[in-house]
Amino acid sequence: MNVSEEVTANRQIRLERRLPDYWRVTFDHPPLNIFGPAAIPQLDEIITAIECDEQLKVVVFDSAVEGFFITHYDFLAPLEESTKIPPGPTGLQALPDMFARLNRAPVVSIASIRGRATGVGSELALASDMRFASREKAILSQWEVGAGLVPGGGPIARLPRLIGRGRALEVLLAADSINADVAELYGYVNRALPDAELEVFVDALAMRIASFDKQAIADTKRLADVASLPSDADIRPEWEAFIAALNRPASQKRIKALMERGFHRAGDVENRLGFYVGQIGG
Amino acid sequence: MNVSEEVTANRQIRLERRLPDYWRVTFDHPPLNIFGPAAIPQLDEIITAIECDEQLKVVVFDSAVEGFFITHYDFLAPLEESTKIPPGPTGLQALPDMFARLNRAPVVSIASIRGRATGVGSELALASDMRFASREKAILSQWEVGAGLVPGGGPIARLPRLIGRGRALEVLLAADSINADVAELYGYVNRALPDAELEVFVDALAMRIASFDKQAIADTKRLADVASLPSDADIRPEWEAFIAALNRPASQKRIKALMERGFHRAGDVENRLGFYVGQIGG
Amino acid sequence: MNVSEEVTANRQIRLERRLPDYWRVTFDHPPLNIFGPAAIPQLDEIITAIECDEQLKVVVFDSAVEGFFITHYDFLAPLEESTKIPPGPTGLQALPDMFARLNRAPVVSIASIRGRATGVGSELALASDMRFASREKAILSQWEVGAGLVPGGGPIARLPRLIGRGRALEVLLAADSINADVAELYGYVNRALPDAELEVFVDALAMRIASFDKQAIADTKRLADVASLPSDADIRPEWEAFIAALNRPASQKRIKALMERGFHRAGDVENRLGFYVGQIGG
Repeated sequence: MNVSEEVTANRQIRLERRLPDYWRVTFDHPPLNIFGPAAIPQLDEIITAIECDEQLKVVVFDSAVEGFFITHYDFLAPLEESTKIPPGPTGLQALPDMFARLNRAPVVSIASIRGRATGVGSELALASDMRFASREKAILSQWEVGAGLVPGGGPIARLPRLIGRGRALEVLLAADSINADVAELYGYVNRALPDAELEVFVDALAMRIASFDKQAIADTKRLADVASLPSDADIRPEWEAFIAALNRPASQKRIKALMERGFHRAGDVENRLGFYVGQIGG
Repeated sequence: MNVSEEVTANRQIRLERRLPDYWRVTFDHPPLNIFGPAAIPQLDEIITAIECDEQLKVVVFDSAVEGFFITHYDFLAPLEESTKIPPGPTGLQALPDMFARLNRAPVVSIASIRGRATGVGSELALASDMRFASREKAILSQWEVGAGLVPGGGPIARLPRLIGRGRALEVLLAADSINADVAELYGYVNRALPDAELEVFVDALAMRIASFDKQAIADTKRLADVASLPSDADIRPEWEAFIAALNRPASQKRIKALMERGFHRAGDVENRLGFYVGQIGG
Repeated sequence: MNVSEEVTANRQIRLERRLPDYWRVTFDHPPLNIFGPAAIPQLDEIITAIECDEQLKVVVFDSAVEGFFITHYDFLAPLEESTKIPPGPTGLQALPDMFARLNRAPVVSIASIRGRATGVGSELALASDMRFASREKAILSQWEVGAGLVPGGGPIARLPRLIGRGRALEVLLAADSINADVAELYGYVNRALPDAELEVFVDALAMRIASFDKQAIADTKRLADVASLPSDADIRPEWEAFIAALNRPASQKRIKALMERGFHRAGDVENRLGFYVGQIGG
């Protein structure tokens, strides 16, 4: 199979063109919505469509998997599958490249977070223009430092600008699970909403924005980018630091310890990753 | 009449020198405190006085109009009345020029927000050093994108720096009414206070600051500006984008639709502008 | 006595190496934890150890004095004792130099705030990576402008980046006491916790971080610094402005008025400094 056939055969991300100006992108890779190298060309194709479509105004990212928005990177996939993917149009590696392009696309992106947004999930949410969370079900985290890693998809550049240095360093260096109340207090999400209201709220917001003029949206977002987006140069070192960390014994030992306890399988380790990364140190 | 006579004849903004070091600037242009080209020389004269007065330490901006702090720009005034006004001392167009000068004046500015602060009202509040809001009565919004426009008075540069990219993009791109509780959560205002306590709180704060040493205030504010003020170059494109958008059919059609429903007149459209801009799209 | 002997004879700051990777720094200079020139070499020695230790991962700053985390600078010490201290390794004056070095140290610093963190206390907290506060007992403030001074230890550079311009200018220019609830709302602290839970929370957080990999911590913090730390050049003017203000009659008169009411002694002025600086203006 070529890449395109593989994508078709193993579709983890669904694109629904709900209206010409309002799309939904749904992660559907049970049981955990783990994000790995196989998902990269799928997401890349979608991001490219978002960038290029002339009618699209707003895109919502959500999950079809109960309990998980998107969780961490796939550590069972051979590392070469990640490193062999060529850099994207920005010159950044594929994952941060897609996030940087989403950031700058002339389209409003909204993350609708139910369940865990860990690692890649948090990074995609942070690369979206807005984030809304289920008060009961959302859990955000950058767990990487707890496993001897460095987050690689842009959150080190984005979080301090979004929520201030103190709270950003807590998210990044405590590497613990953040519930929706704290995420709202910190500004990690725009707002937390009762789980029963989240989808209605997000859909109404998306429909509202879809009724607006595309050029007014695009011009306003582009001007806002000046003051609020990290440069590609600011983002670039994160992926390199992630790969370097992944090759160190400290992370290999910790990831192995997590695997032995049930990492990458449905169950308590994935449900309480913040707790478990606090148990494996030495 | 020359400009000066017009100003006298049609005074929309009152300056009260409550004490030599504490002034109040009150918008009193019923029924809506719409801000148009006629108000520009009036505000400019006041901003110049604020900049130059040797005793002044603190100025409070408020409204004498029930239900409205200051609302949007005047779209009934011929566009030429706006575009013919020469740039101000900063080189920026008159409106953003005044806001940039207020930002840098060696005087503490406080917006006391009761009622709607929409468009220009939100922009003046954002150009003030601090913002306090009536919990029951304040409504803030940048409604412009909902009408096919781009905000022109600096909020695209100021909001992301103040409240972070995510919440700033929501304010700017959802273009909806924000109540005081959410404005406080987002940091769009410093704090919301019970309506009955707002004036007492703001007046006590102003009296307190007026008792301090002017040079200590001015030096501290000037040093804080370095890290917190957008440059004039960052602000400049907004007014140009606003005028360009105002000349496009998309905005003309939407403004016309709002006018047909009662825009620029006391009533439901002005009271619930966030709702109505969500009703006129195509 | 030489400096080293003085330090030993008049130890105001205790360093406890609780674990090789987890230290506690406790300010114990009753009754107020006033911070003056005598404390500078003591803190400098500790900061240097924090920077250089190869095992250390996390350091907690707290106080052994009931009611006070660390309060203001010592205005009874002759000014020459402050000005004669040579600049530190960054080229900044000793106090902002230590804070800048703490900011960049490859170690996580946590301020655990019970009681008043006024002036220097707030500045040390702001130079720490994270801040947690007792909901009942913490009071933060930058009181300096109320005494005709300009804060000198970096808060003018750090606060706007941390909590936004509006709230930063309120803290700096209203110069009033901020309780833990407002400090949490503003992001001046990461979170406020019930007093009875603060130490357990902070200790668990520190133990957690101490279990992580030092290089992952250091690399992540270093990348986060890029977007979140003021440059030394941004910090430098504050100390100069503080010393200049201290030499002006306006501050001398106000400090004298505070001294007459009980400043620098246990009692109501120190307990309610925010109130008292509002009583001495003229």
